[in-house]
Amino acid sequence: MNVALIGLGRMGQAMAGQIVAAGHELAVYNRTAGKAAALVAAGAREASSVADACTGREVVVTMVADDAALREVALGPAGIVASLEDGAVHVAMGTHGVATIRAVEEGHREAAQAMVAAPVLGRPEVAAQGQLGVVAAGPRDAVARCEPVFEAVGRRTFDAGERPEGASAVKLVNNFVLGCAIEAMAEAFSLVRKYGLEPEVMHDVMTAGLFAAPAYQVYGRIMVEEDYDTVGFTARLGLKDINLILAAADLANVPLPSANAFRDRLLGALAHGDGERDWAVVAREQARASGLE
Amino acid sequence: MNVALIGLGRMGQAMAGQIVAAGHELAVYNRTAGKAAALVAAGAREASSVADACTGREVVVTMVADDAALREVALGPAGIVASLEDGAVHVAMGTHGVATIRAVEEGHREAAQAMVAAPVLGRPEVAAQGQLGVVAAGPRDAVARCEPVFEAVGRRTFDAGERPEGASAVKLVNNFVLGCAIEAMAEAFSLVRKYGLEPEVMHDVMTAGLFAAPAYQVYGRIMVEEDYDTVGFTARLGLKDINLILAAADLANVPLPSANAFRDRLLGALAHGDGERDWAVVAREQARASGLE
Amino acid sequence: MNVALIGLGRMGQAMAGQIVAAGHELAVYNRTAGKAAALVAAGAREASSVADACTGREVVVTMVADDAALREVALGPAGIVASLEDGAVHVAMGTHGVATIRAVEEGHREAAQAMVAAPVLGRPEVAAQGQLGVVAAGPRDAVARCEPVFEAVGRRTFDAGERPEGASAVKLVNNFVLGCAIEAMAEAFSLVRKYGLEPEVMHDVMTAGLFAAPAYQVYGRIMVEEDYDTVGFTARLGLKDINLILAAADLANVPLPSANAFRDRLLGALAHGDGERDWAVVAREQARASGLE
Amino acid sequence: MNVALIGLGRMGQAMAGQIVAAGHELAVYNRTAGKAAALVAAGAREASSVADACTGREVVVTMVADDAALREVALGPAGIVASLEDGAVHVAMGTHGVATIRAVEEGHREAAQAMVAAPVLGRPEVAAQGQLGVVAAGPRDAVARCEPVFEAVGRRTFDAGERPEGASAVKLVNNFVLGCAIEAMAEAFSLVRKYGLEPEVMHDVMTAGLFAAPAYQVYGRIMVEEDYDTVGFTARLGLKDINLILAAADLANVPLPSANAFRDRLLGALAHGDGERDWAVVAREQARASGLE
Repeated sequence: MNVALIGLGRMGQAMAGQIVAAGHELAVYNRTAGKAAALVAAGAREASSVADACTGREVVVTMVADDAALREVALGPAGIVASLEDGAVHVAMGTHGVATIRAVEEGHREAAQAMVAAPVLGRPEVAAQGQLGVVAAGPRDAVARCEPVFEAVGRRTFDAGERPEGASAVKLVNNFVLGCAIEAMAEAFSLVRKYGLEPEVMHDVMTAGLFAAPAYQVYGRIMVEEDYDTVGFTARLGLKDINLILAAADLANVPLPSANAFRDRLLGALAHGDGERDWAVVAREQARASGLE
Repeated sequence: MNVALIGLGRMGQAMAGQIVAAGHELAVYNRTAGKAAALVAAGAREASSVADACTGREVVVTMVADDAALREVALGPAGIVASLEDGAVHVAMGTHGVATIRAVEEGHREAAQAMVAAPVLGRPEVAAQGQLGVVAAGPRDAVARCEPVFEAVGRRTFDAGERPEGASAVKLVNNFVLGCAIEAMAEAFSLVRKYGLEPEVMHDVMTAGLFAAPAYQVYGRIMVEEDYDTVGFTARLGLKDINLILAAADLANVPLPSANAFRDRLLGALAHGDGERDWAVVAREQARASGLE
Repeated sequence: MNVALIGLGRMGQAMAGQIVAAGHELAVYNRTAGKAAALVAAGAREASSVADACTGREVVVTMVADDAALREVALGPAGIVASLEDGAVHVAMGTHGVATIRAVEEGHREAAQAMVAAPVLGRPEVAAQGQLGVVAAGPRDAVARCEPVFEAVGRRTFDAGERPEGASAVKLVNNFVLGCAIEAMAEAFSLVRKYGLEPEVMHDVMTAGLFAAPAYQVYGRIMVEEDYDTVGFTARLGLKDINLILAAADLANVPLPSANAFRDRLLGALAHGDGERDWAVVAREQARASGLE
Repeated sequence: MNVALIGLGRMGQAMAGQIVAAGHELAVYNRTAGKAAALVAAGAREASSVADACTGREVVVTMVADDAALREVALGPAGIVASLEDGAVHVAMGTHGVATIRAVEEGHREAAQAMVAAPVLGRPEVAAQGQLGVVAAGPRDAVARCEPVFEAVGRRTFDAGERPEGASAVKLVNNFVLGCAIEAMAEAFSLVRKYGLEPEVMHDVMTAGLFAAPAYQVYGRIMVEEDYDTVGFTARLGLKDINLILAAADLANVPLPSANAFRDRLLGALAHGDGERDWAVVAREQARASGLE
């Protein structure tokens, strides 16, 4: 299949590698140059612009950093809406807010184009092994046309309905549930520390039983070791994420009290200069609020 | 070993069965009669009183329903403090508040007796297979003397230090983390429902990835099926539990904002007459707050 | 009228002074001696015990520090229930929890006695001028018999119905609304400080308009001057109060999310060693959470 | 003085009337026509465009409905930045978010123009009597040039420093404190209702004492009478306002837990179809959460 992929951050590069390896014709494009060398060596073509990337492609994947970037690349002059071939599909695979997905979808609809949202679950290492989860939503036939891409990068595709915003909601909600688990552990560790206990025992109890899952194993470990400088996802990005979640909840009139608790600790972390540390650093912020630091 | 077990609710009966099966001499006692028949048939002796149960025992296990029951059975007239043999140990294996554990410990200390707190992780079915987790805290030698009991009922013992209240804190905090996970899912399902999605897809996404653990599998399933009348643990008991947690946090001056969110939904559930339903019913309460019911 | 007043803290002394000044026969009692001299000089009689204080009295006022003290003085051996004359009324004028008022009322009911709850609004200085607000609830005729006392100490009596717990609820809720105002200002001042502004201007804007009332004038001023060591009411007592409020809400199945926010800041204040400062010190705690201290 | 006023909603019209009455030359402009008749009769000139309104004016007042309108009228083609006379001042007197004020200020700065933010306190009726509070911030000399306008519409000007965003912050924070008072009363009334009491008595107690101020008198009265259809300010606008506040707090890294509580009730009110009712309708939403409706 002829595929384009726009956005060559760590995740985009890993996904592009899998798409090439699966035997598809791939054009890649990144706003700043110098990210495509390895992919070109593997057989991809480096496009000179978004429009160039879209030329002759059946599926155009975007994997860009944030909502502003997606709006620009899709709706801007010489963007995807302006450049997509007849019958081709734009599949947005980044994590985006509901309002942005709606706006981009609207742009495509006005141009009589189909759009799919298919945010992914997993980190770049997982993408490089083709083992992502893919949450896909959009018109049935448009989703079907993207399937070769999903098979190349993912281990499983989840069906989130026929409206692209549904996939966005599911992805954001999954991140929300993760944020709540991180916040709960942050509070938990402060409490056991105030009782004179090592956080280690709490981590053992949790992960040996009800919480024997990556969310608790990975983030609990970071908190036990207070290793917030090995950063997977920063507190600042976490705040951006939780704000996307709250905006999605706002559009649907849903109160999310647990999101508030997590958001407030993230804000405190930023106020204390911990914005560029791993978002598990809310455990330190909770410790501050408990008189422990 | 000579053991007594006081409190023959479902959990106490299951544990007593394991202790007898392990070959220990066991005296059992329950405030209301008629719970001991199967255990007597298996070789236990039914005691006529707390004092009778304590006679000649090295380890006296309590597995009573709440703090008031523990205070009465331990500190009341002809209670455990008054009845314990020299050198014997009282090990409280129920889930109790920190203030109560402190009061009972103080009673034993004044009588020059040792006390251990060893709340358990797992449900009666798990106890009946000797597969509980045991969180034990108390003086080293006293904990050591209880180990045959822990081996009979549990698969693993977690060391929560030398002060009994530490074990209480760890157990309560584990329940708190569970409550937070339940609350997070409750909020999550409301949000995806407002986006027109089936809760099932959200459950799949969560449990296939970061949250592939019993807490999410079990309680997520209940919420997907809205099956709140098959009750594991009622909303009313959940509220009691979260109040014990908040009281423990109060004694240690620790704010727990996530506990507040869960507690408020439990209160709403009780206000709507759902107090005797499974505590996952907070998902219904969250749905109400989102205009879904 | 023959009146007794038990509990000679600052508030009790001020009220007793007004009762004597109004021409009533007053017996006074305090658990620890040495508080009655000025009152005796003014014409009161110092009783030697609770029972002695109750002898020959139509109305027995209690103005004791907390729930434990009220339970002891009312329900304890030789307490008010045991000592009240036929047809006399116990009127509890301190701030007490609903559960305690219920327990004391039950004690009186079993003894075929009437009880009134009539907590007061105002500080000792206000009491010394007979200008308190009185929130009274209980059986109509019992409340009527207390009216000479209310007239002596108060400027106005609010009718909170026929069940004593109603008066307790109203008083606690009034304190809750105050706590919320304090918390709101605490958050407000942190925010304007982060924008580089003097808190003074915020105080001016608030109290010149929508919030031209003592709650904002008094507590706003304390926060502007950061004068938390001139203590009206400590953070520790504030926490006790908010816990009484939450307990009252718990009995009625009412979530109070604003109370949670205030309670968490009070806990943080205690954790940082500010428990004996004025409860407006939550503004400092909020400032900490905002990276300002 | 030569003044322009752009935005003839109820508040803009009332302010324009005062400016004319004070003897200033006033040009008025509104995006949709038909709002200027009474003002023209009183001596104002109706401009045909923003650019026309700005011609020959020393001070250009904007009183537009929201941030989008301000951005358009100030930064759009033929907007104020493009049209302002040398040395003239744009004073934004609506309630705007910090980010928008920053963007508009930046536009003016690039054009070497001064900008003042001066949001007002009070409703249209108050404006019509020239009795508004004015919270002004901006360069000293620019603020000074606006003073004749402030004198015409206001009773008092509060100095919020030299950065326009400071005035925005103070105004938003004042609204935030009001929101907290409304939320606190909403919770308070639910609790007393659950104790079988009339809300009236709670209203009396509050407003006779610590809370004898308009915020409590006005909104407490609405709640007592459950008169949410006489609308001063809708729940939907309240949500917009609280979102502006939270955005301002976000930019400054300040957690506002009390704002979260109020926001969640507003969301619930919208979810239940109460978005166009007065924002005091959060009392009904709180009642729902307490099982009262």
